[in-house]
Amino acid sequence: MNILPEALEDLIESFAVLPGVGQKTAERYAYYLVKQPDNTSAKLASVLNNLKSQIKQCPKTFALISSSQSESDLYSNPKRDKTTIAVVAEPFDIVAIEKTAKYQGTYHVLGGLISPLDGISPDSLHIPELLSRIIEDRVVEVILATSASVEGESTALYIQSRINEQNPNIKVTRLARGLPIGLDIEYADQITLSRALENRQSF
Amino acid sequence: MNILPEALEDLIESFAVLPGVGQKTAERYAYYLVKQPDNTSAKLASVLNNLKSQIKQCPKTFALISSSQSESDLYSNPKRDKTTIAVVAEPFDIVAIEKTAKYQGTYHVLGGLISPLDGISPDSLHIPELLSRIIEDRVVEVILATSASVEGESTALYIQSRINEQNPNIKVTRLARGLPIGLDIEYADQITLSRALENRQSF
Repeated sequence: MNILPEALEDLIESFAVLPGVGQKTAERYAYYLVKQPDNTSAKLASVLNNLKSQIKQCPKTFALISSSQSESDLYSNPKRDKTTIAVVAEPFDIVAIEKTAKYQGTYHVLGGLISPLDGISPDSLHIPELLSRIIEDRVVEVILATSASVEGESTALYIQSRINEQNPNIKVTRLARGLPIGLDIEYADQITLSRALENRQSF
Repeated sequence: MNILPEALEDLIESFAVLPGVGQKTAERYAYYLVKQPDNTSAKLASVLNNLKSQIKQCPKTFALISSSQSESDLYSNPKRDKTTIAVVAEPFDIVAIEKTAKYQGTYHVLGGLISPLDGISPDSLHIPELLSRIIEDRVVEVILATSASVEGESTALYIQSRINEQNPNIKVTRLARGLPIGLDIEYADQITLSRALENRQSF
């Protein structure tokens, strides 16, 4: 005997696959939609149906773009400096960097970080395409904007050595490591603090 | 210039209406679905599309049931004792009580709790239907299984007085208030502790 109707059980199950969503949260989402007018769940359904058909990867930068576009705006826009490339792991990292409004170059999405335990080798990332872009667009600087994790650091080191092999004159940089804004020194972890000390900046 | 394709922005916006979901969480859900094979988002879409057409309210208990059913299994099942009704605020409360496997009576969903500030008056709840069921099914006990909040308590008091007016011989009970299992006395709040003391139980 089912306590809940099958359609509701199915919805709870589908919500529960989302990252960080357990049974209770999935029930809460499902029940919220049940209580809303019909068009709330219908709208979410149509948006989900359109998702895969309306987005694709930019062939140059591997950012997510609309199916109607040929290249990412952040690449095709003449205001963007094509001789500087910020290399990021995932498409959403671009959003975070764009929000700073401090960067005028282009992007290159790797599609992940090297992680042998998860079966992600350098071959499964968009590294050859990056190396071709460096030649094609006469790139002068590559910023390795990967996270400060073990995977992020080792991916950055690997790409840096590949770029160096191809052309040692290209400037390869990475994001500064140091104290995040607002953090008291006493709460900073040892590694962050020792990096901040090593890379101390002059006024 | 959009950083993200419109289909993705739409999906993030639709997820952000769910309770407790902010911009960051919505982005995380959306990006998870982008990375999954096509059928993950298609499945969620079809489940959402079916939601409203495949569920309805039981005309007796106001629990959620499949459109193909005429009454809730928890009511029509001859093993359930129709002379005992547990009155709950929302359909999901039934799931919580059923999980205890300690209850063999039927349910009645109010559809909310009396809350003048939110515009929920006694008239917007399924109270008249409860009063008719009490006569119809020759009910002997009504358990007011509302939460221990101000709204839950005042709704229980209101219904208790309405039942009393109609037939003072019906036993009206409510869920015991006391220490939750696993809680140390030192961490119990004053109201819970004073209720537990007032309603102390003999061995």
